[in-house]
Amino acid sequence: MVNIAIMGHGFIGSGVVEVLTKNHDHIAAKAKEEINIKYILDIRDFDDLPYSDKFIKDFSVIENDDSIKIVVEVMGGTEPAYSFVKACLLKGKSVVTSNKELVAAKGAELLQIAEENNVNFLFEGSVGGGIPILRPIAQCLAANDILEIVGILNGTTNFILTKMTDDGMEFEEALELAQHLGYAERDPSADVDGHDACRKICILASIAFGKHVYPNQVKTEGIRKITLEDFAYAVGAGYTVKLLGRTKLLDSGKVIATVGPCFVDHTSPLANVNDVFNSVLVRGDAIGDVSFYGRGAGKLPTASAVVADVIDCVKHLSARKYLFWAEGSDDYVQSADGEAVKMYVRLTSENKLMGQIIAEKFQGAQMLSRENQPDNEFAFITPKLKKYIIEDTLADMKDITIIGKMHILE
Amino acid sequence: MVNIAIMGHGFIGSGVVEVLTKNHDHIAAKAKEEINIKYILDIRDFDDLPYSDKFIKDFSVIENDDSIKIVVEVMGGTEPAYSFVKACLLKGKSVVTSNKELVAAKGAELLQIAEENNVNFLFEGSVGGGIPILRPIAQCLAANDILEIVGILNGTTNFILTKMTDDGMEFEEALELAQHLGYAERDPSADVDGHDACRKICILASIAFGKHVYPNQVKTEGIRKITLEDFAYAVGAGYTVKLLGRTKLLDSGKVIATVGPCFVDHTSPLANVNDVFNSVLVRGDAIGDVSFYGRGAGKLPTASAVVADVIDCVKHLSARKYLFWAEGSDDYVQSADGEAVKMYVRLTSENKLMGQIIAEKFQGAQMLSRENQPDNEFAFITPKLKKYIIEDTLADMKDITIIGKMHILE
Repeated sequence: MVNIAIMGHGFIGSGVVEVLTKNHDHIAAKAKEEINIKYILDIRDFDDLPYSDKFIKDFSVIENDDSIKIVVEVMGGTEPAYSFVKACLLKGKSVVTSNKELVAAKGAELLQIAEENNVNFLFEGSVGGGIPILRPIAQCLAANDILEIVGILNGTTNFILTKMTDDGMEFEEALELAQHLGYAERDPSADVDGHDACRKICILASIAFGKHVYPNQVKTEGIRKITLEDFAYAVGAGYTVKLLGRTKLLDSGKVIATVGPCFVDHTSPLANVNDVFNSVLVRGDAIGDVSFYGRGAGKLPTASAVVADVIDCVKHLSARKYLFWAEGSDDYVQSADGEAVKMYVRLTSENKLMGQIIAEKFQGAQMLSRENQPDNEFAFITPKLKKYIIEDTLADMKDITIIGKMHILE
Repeated sequence: MVNIAIMGHGFIGSGVVEVLTKNHDHIAAKAKEEINIKYILDIRDFDDLPYSDKFIKDFSVIENDDSIKIVVEVMGGTEPAYSFVKACLLKGKSVVTSNKELVAAKGAELLQIAEENNVNFLFEGSVGGGIPILRPIAQCLAANDILEIVGILNGTTNFILTKMTDDGMEFEEALELAQHLGYAERDPSADVDGHDACRKICILASIAFGKHVYPNQVKTEGIRKITLEDFAYAVGAGYTVKLLGRTKLLDSGKVIATVGPCFVDHTSPLANVNDVFNSVLVRGDAIGDVSFYGRGAGKLPTASAVVADVIDCVKHLSARKYLFWAEGSDDYVQSADGEAVKMYVRLTSENKLMGQIIAEKFQGAQMLSRENQPDNEFAFITPKLKKYIIEDTLADMKDITIIGKMHILE
C-alpha cells in the first residue's frame, strides 16, 4: 500500500478523489499496489463527505509524515503551491500536479530539485486536461527531433469562437453563455486574454526543446478584439479563426513561441476542433505530423490524467522518470517578427483608391469581401513576407485605421 | 554504452539504423547512454553500406552475446521471429518489435516470458506506425476504464477509399495507384482483406482490456466489394466509407472485436482522416473521447517508434515496464450479432413494390438515392436493431439480391 496526500479539494481535487475511489480496484491492478489517500489538505471544512476524516489544514503534517510517498498538488496558483511542492520534493516525496501556472513559472527549478532528490515531478494534467500529450512527446517521440508544435490549448476560448462562427453570436454573448455553462470564470481574463494558452505553450516548448520558456517571453494575444466581421472574411476565403499556441525550433537552436488568434484553413485538422475540445499537433523530423485530440478541461478528464501520473509514480517509487528541461535564458526565445508569414489585415480608409494602394504595397495580396461590406472597409491577405516587413509597410500607409490583423496558419 | 542488435534490415530495419545514426547525440541525451548497434542480422548481403561490418547471418551470435541487452526485431512474420524473440527474452534481453503479426498471435505469451525474466517486451511501432497509441493507452489513460476503441488502422486501404471518394476511382484503379506509389504490396491481401487492421485491433483490445484477443476471433471483412455506387449512396446521406477496426467492452466483461467497412458521419473526426493517415479514437470512462492521428505507416515514422521503445528499454534496463495482458480464451470474444446497430443495405429486386416491402419490414428505414439509380436497385439505412434481427429479416425477404451491406458507425 502506498500513502498519498492531496493538496486542494476544489474542482480537480474532488475529481481525483472520485477517480481513485470509483476505479480503485482497476487502479490497484495497474499500479500493482493499493493507493491510500491519507490526507487531504484544504483550508475549508468538508464535514459532510464520507471521507471527511482525511481533511487537514496544516501542511507540515504532510511534510513531516515519512509514510507519504506521493503528494498531489491541485490547489492552483503559484503560492503557496510552489513552497509546498518544493518542500515535498526536498523531503523525498514525488509530486503530481495539474497546476499549469506553477509548471510554466517554476518547472525547470522543480524538475531539478526532483532529480537531486531522486523523486518524480509529473504534470500531464497541466496541458490538455486528460489528453495524453506530455508523456507521448517526452517518451514516444523521443527518437524525433521535434520541430514545431501548434495547438488549440484553451477550451473556453475555443467554445466562444465556435459559437461565434456556428451561431453568429457576438463575443460578449458567447462569453456569457460560456460563463453560464461553467466553462468560463466570472473573471474570464486568464482564458480570453490568452494567459492560460500561454502557460501551456510554455510547458510544451520546454518539454519539446529541452529549455524553459517563461510566460513573459511569449507574445500573447487574446480573442476580445475578434468580431463577426472577421469571421465573415475568414469563412468567405475558406478559413476559420482559432486561438493558437505555437512554438518552433529555429536553425539557430533558439525558439519562437506565441499565442494569438489565427486564420486556419478549413481543411486543416485544427479547423474541425470545436466547442471545448483541444488539439495539439506535433511535427517531428521522423514521424511527420501527429496530433492529439480530446476534451481539454473538465473535472474527470483532468483528474484522470493526475491519477495516471500517480500510478506512474507508484510504479517508479525507486526509479526516476527522465523528464527534464534546463533553466531558460533571456535571449533563448526570439521574436516572431523575423518569421515569413501571410497575414489577414482589415482596415478602414476614406481614400477611394485604397484598393489600388494595397495592391501596389502588397503585390499579390488576396482581396477579401463580405456581405454588407462598407465602402470604406478593406480586407486582404498579404503575400508571404517577413512579419516586420508587413508591419513596416502598414505603418507607412497613410489615411488608414487598422481594425483587424491575424496570422494565417500554414 | 548499451549494445543492441537489429534483426532484419528491410524497410523498417534500415529506417531504425537511419534514425539511430541521424539523431545519435539527441538520442544519447534522452537515453542517458550511448546506443551502439553491434550486430545486424539478415540473410542477405549488404556489402556497400558504411556499416556493412555489422552484418551477421547466424542468430546464435546475438543469443549468446551477453553484452547485447536489447534486441530489435523487424523481420516481420511469425517465424523465425517468434523463436528468435522468445530465445532473446529467455536469455534476459529486452526486445522491441514493430511486428504486428507476431504480437497479435503471441503477445500474451511473450509478455509473460518477459516478466519472468525481468526484461521488457515493447511494440509501440506495431500499431499506428509512429503515432503514440499503445503507451498512452497503457500509461496515460491508466486511471480510466477503457470502454471502446475505434480506429482507421490501415493506411493503404484508407488511401484507396480516399481515392474512390475524392477522385471517383474504381477500387482496382485506386489499388494500382497505391501499388505504384509503394503504399500497397504486389499481393495486397493483408491490407485490402483487412488482416493487417485485424492484427492491430487485436493488439489494441488486448492492451486496453487486459486479455488477449486473437486474430481468428475477430470477424474481419475487407474493402474489395465496395463500389462507387456505395460511395454515392453514402455521400448523398451525409456519410463517407471507412475501414474500421472496432472493439468494445461488454457489461459481461467479455468483448466484441470486428474489422469491416462502415458508413461514418461526415462530422465525425474519423471521416476527415484521409490518404495514408491513421486515427484511433479511445473512449474512457473519465476522459471521454480522445483521439490520436498521424501517418500510420512508413519507414521513418515506424522506425522512430521502434527507437523510442529502445530508448525506454535503455532507461529501464533494471526496471520492468508494467505492460501486460493475460492469455485469452475461447469464449472471451463475443459475436457482434447481438449489438444494436443501424445498417446500410443495397439490393436489387424485380419486384416493383420492393420499396413498400422494405418500409414494412424495417419500419423507420431511411431510403437512399443516387444519380442514375436503376429502377431495380434499392438502398436504405435500417432503424437501430440487433444485428441478427436485421440479418434474419433480410434472409426472409423474397426476390432480392443483396449487393452491399455495411454498419453505420455511431
